[in-house]
Amino acid sequence: MRPIIEVAKDIGIADEHLELYGKYKSKINPSLWEEVKHRPEGQLVLVTAMNPTPAGEGKTLTTIGLAQGLNAIGEPTIAALREPSLGPCFGMKGGATGSGKAQIIPADDINLHFTGDIHAVTSAHNLLSAMIDNHVFHGNALRLDSKRIVWKRAMDMNDRSLRQMVTGLGDGNGNVREAGFLITTASEIMAVLCLSENLSDLRNRLGRMVIGYNEAGDAVTAVQLGAVEAMVILLKEAMKPNLVQTLEGTPVMVHGGPFANIAHGCSSVVGTRLSLKLAKIVVTEAGFGADLGAEKFFNIKCRQAGLTPAAAVLVVTVKALKYNGGVPKQELEYPNVDALHQGLCNMERHIENIRKFGVPVLVAINHFEGDVSEEIKLVQQRCQQLGVQVEISKVWAEGSVGAIQFAETLVELLHNETSNFTPLYTDELDIKSKIEKVVGDIYRGVGVSFSPSAVRGLAEINRLGYGSLPVCMAKTPYSFSDQPRLLGAPEGFTMHVRDVSLSAGAGFVVVHTGNIVTMPGLPKSPAAEHMAMDEDGVITGLI
Amino acid sequence: MRPIIEVAKDIGIADEHLELYGKYKSKINPSLWEEVKHRPEGQLVLVTAMNPTPAGEGKTLTTIGLAQGLNAIGEPTIAALREPSLGPCFGMKGGATGSGKAQIIPADDINLHFTGDIHAVTSAHNLLSAMIDNHVFHGNALRLDSKRIVWKRAMDMNDRSLRQMVTGLGDGNGNVREAGFLITTASEIMAVLCLSENLSDLRNRLGRMVIGYNEAGDAVTAVQLGAVEAMVILLKEAMKPNLVQTLEGTPVMVHGGPFANIAHGCSSVVGTRLSLKLAKIVVTEAGFGADLGAEKFFNIKCRQAGLTPAAAVLVVTVKALKYNGGVPKQELEYPNVDALHQGLCNMERHIENIRKFGVPVLVAINHFEGDVSEEIKLVQQRCQQLGVQVEISKVWAEGSVGAIQFAETLVELLHNETSNFTPLYTDELDIKSKIEKVVGDIYRGVGVSFSPSAVRGLAEINRLGYGSLPVCMAKTPYSFSDQPRLLGAPEGFTMHVRDVSLSAGAGFVVVHTGNIVTMPGLPKSPAAEHMAMDEDGVITGLI
Repeated sequence: MRPIIEVAKDIGIADEHLELYGKYKSKINPSLWEEVKHRPEGQLVLVTAMNPTPAGEGKTLTTIGLAQGLNAIGEPTIAALREPSLGPCFGMKGGATGSGKAQIIPADDINLHFTGDIHAVTSAHNLLSAMIDNHVFHGNALRLDSKRIVWKRAMDMNDRSLRQMVTGLGDGNGNVREAGFLITTASEIMAVLCLSENLSDLRNRLGRMVIGYNEAGDAVTAVQLGAVEAMVILLKEAMKPNLVQTLEGTPVMVHGGPFANIAHGCSSVVGTRLSLKLAKIVVTEAGFGADLGAEKFFNIKCRQAGLTPAAAVLVVTVKALKYNGGVPKQELEYPNVDALHQGLCNMERHIENIRKFGVPVLVAINHFEGDVSEEIKLVQQRCQQLGVQVEISKVWAEGSVGAIQFAETLVELLHNETSNFTPLYTDELDIKSKIEKVVGDIYRGVGVSFSPSAVRGLAEINRLGYGSLPVCMAKTPYSFSDQPRLLGAPEGFTMHVRDVSLSAGAGFVVVHTGNIVTMPGLPKSPAAEHMAMDEDGVITGLI
Repeated sequence: MRPIIEVAKDIGIADEHLELYGKYKSKINPSLWEEVKHRPEGQLVLVTAMNPTPAGEGKTLTTIGLAQGLNAIGEPTIAALREPSLGPCFGMKGGATGSGKAQIIPADDINLHFTGDIHAVTSAHNLLSAMIDNHVFHGNALRLDSKRIVWKRAMDMNDRSLRQMVTGLGDGNGNVREAGFLITTASEIMAVLCLSENLSDLRNRLGRMVIGYNEAGDAVTAVQLGAVEAMVILLKEAMKPNLVQTLEGTPVMVHGGPFANIAHGCSSVVGTRLSLKLAKIVVTEAGFGADLGAEKFFNIKCRQAGLTPAAAVLVVTVKALKYNGGVPKQELEYPNVDALHQGLCNMERHIENIRKFGVPVLVAINHFEGDVSEEIKLVQQRCQQLGVQVEISKVWAEGSVGAIQFAETLVELLHNETSNFTPLYTDELDIKSKIEKVVGDIYRGVGVSFSPSAVRGLAEINRLGYGSLPVCMAKTPYSFSDQPRLLGAPEGFTMHVRDVSLSAGAGFVVVHTGNIVTMPGLPKSPAAEHMAMDEDGVITGLI
């Protein structure tokens, strides 16, 4: 592992802009932004994927390996990734730092407390929560309606028992009410952190966050509780992007980690923007499949930050295509050309969708050991028919060596094809129509049904003056529809919008379809039970 | 501010042993211990105080200033302090990094997330909590009795609404039961971290922690839940002591911060032990007054770690003495020799108590601007009568300059008087007798009454084989008795033991007298509301 000071030097960052966390992690001070802000920007490449399956598609892996490959062919590249949430590492997820020869390091540290950003979000979130109940306890001058406090508490742990509770029991312990916890990555503050341009934008967004409603039905915000400055103070370090490296020494900006359903699921704007000033190419990822991740990356992150993505890489795997063609999980390792043929419609629709944003696409087949050439050939043929370039990525087994051709093709594409990026809808479109537009154009449903609660919610959001916000779809990642088992490229379905909620600080309206859990639980035998650390500090079972 | 690398170099720590957190904070790797463990040890000085009053006694301030003074007269000294808890900074406490010319820096950072130790304790604590409810949810193989789960959840925030709650409500969200949160510093894990000698001791202690009881009434421990290794992994960085400096560049080890009532209230054993290898004198503090802080420092920390304190400094103030003599808070600034005379009994009893441990005492009068010489003279006279040396400390106004005489007298005392340190009671004494011994010898009560629940608890602790543990008294800090308003040197009272609880990992039995709150609340107008950060990052309202 090279000292992070040297990795930073490679991309022109002087020591004075670094704040080291040990020898291999560093935060980057805003002073660097002042130095580089007038430079031209590199090109932004999004790595997205077909719908996720139990086999794992390797989006993070591919992002890391591609960045290594681009550097190997002489294209100065930085990868911009999300920070792993600590809680799920102890459940069944394992780490989120890539694997094989495409990993970011120090992987243990990054998967554990890293530089404390997520802990800072937890603290800021819970300070606001405590101030809300404290306000009610001490006279409730704002006349908050206890039944309509929408701000929950947060913890970076998988703990289903905290989803729904009654707090304030006992003598002198405040107002008795229903409450609950989110996992920290689902906090609006995490989304705010990721979308803020700087501390002053952060301050304004935090202030706009709606924490509940008063007895007259008006929204009550964090600024009214006097909590904003204290939250800014708690978040000031967390706003600085983190620099680490890949196994091959490629620089990686790991910053922010919002949920990809009730939030937008992309790494921070400050990290992306800074990377674009430091590298020729910036490779970044968005959560889940392109129906959720890419759509939100384009419609929320790029819209708000004024970013223009130059290209998108769509990660597919032979296994995931077969799964979408109807093969059960246990049989994915066996060749099955017919099923693969059936499942290609999933890839095809994602390609069509990305093109609707005017962004050039390259398909990357993330190669697994058992893949047979007949299957791979079928994917390549379909891509050719669609006029889309396709490359095989062997970054897990080979690192940059397995991404040379992949990287060269991407560079060619960046050179030859111009991005005509436009978000799918304008700000002016009303929220209901925005939802219908996403459902119609991206998911390909025949219609949208709104529950009475959703109808009321939409009316309220309009009344509060937030009708011009983009929508943030909370939907199962496994299907284009709201039914997790409807694989492939389903048609003819109706989307059911259960509820809508306002994230005024993040700047979007969350559209709840189906039942999205914002606090995961642990499995019967959690990963935590199988971890160990030996006398040399070597950890097993974490990654 | 000098780079922490230079401060480390002053005390002979090479760069390779440091893990920097920015330029001014560093963790110290266990590799340094390997290098220095065979060296002779310096002398350990405890800074304690008379009973705390609303006027503030300045124990942390005095510890910092004394360390500065000792260095100024050429005695290589390190201060060993506790880490501030983040939550209370947003309530009304303000920071815990000293003040005036006796401060540790960077104060903002230390009061906020510092190096993440307390966040790590929160994570480890809540992982165990989640695994407990998850165990019950997935079949409860250990037959845990839901009504006797004693392990709560933890958060580093003042939030009274979380003291008592019902969790697990809603479909699929687990077992419905009563639960609650502690502030993180009240977690047994914080006490365990502070008392552990190394990672392997940490592992054993974590494993012994009792999380509840099964249907047969047997204790169920963390090791039975398979949570220990994951907790060790979460705590591995938090186990490394943190090095910072005072305003004058004096090295300070800031590590660990347990509650001083339901835990022992001292900084970490690893930090103390390492400091003793690096300096001629180590000045450390213990929470609250000497009746709680010094008693636990001696009977718990020194007993467990085999430390021999060479001397104790008892901090008194003219204001606090007058308060103990019956003057109300608003009138403390006016001279009142009679009341001062009345209040001296408080100081006197603390001196007697410390002598019972065989430890030489020096009284430090922490000087305030309004103190009149007649009052100070009275304190000095009483000390002379008692055969105790006394010095005026002006460290708030003058830093080391205000502690030269103070430091010289301490060095003389260390030279001339030998410590005959012995804990107050032997391990063999039964727990009930240990409680009676502390109440009789230190508090000077006439007897102890045990509630039926305490009697049952004592029987259970003996049955479980923990009868040889020391006791950790949870008592109001304001009085020698369990009645906060009984100031001075009360006599003739009976102590009421409400309950006892086992901290098998920390290695003590907590004795609850009165109602000790383990999750504070926020005041009507929390400090958080009055904080601000300007464009240069300068924070007001935090310290």
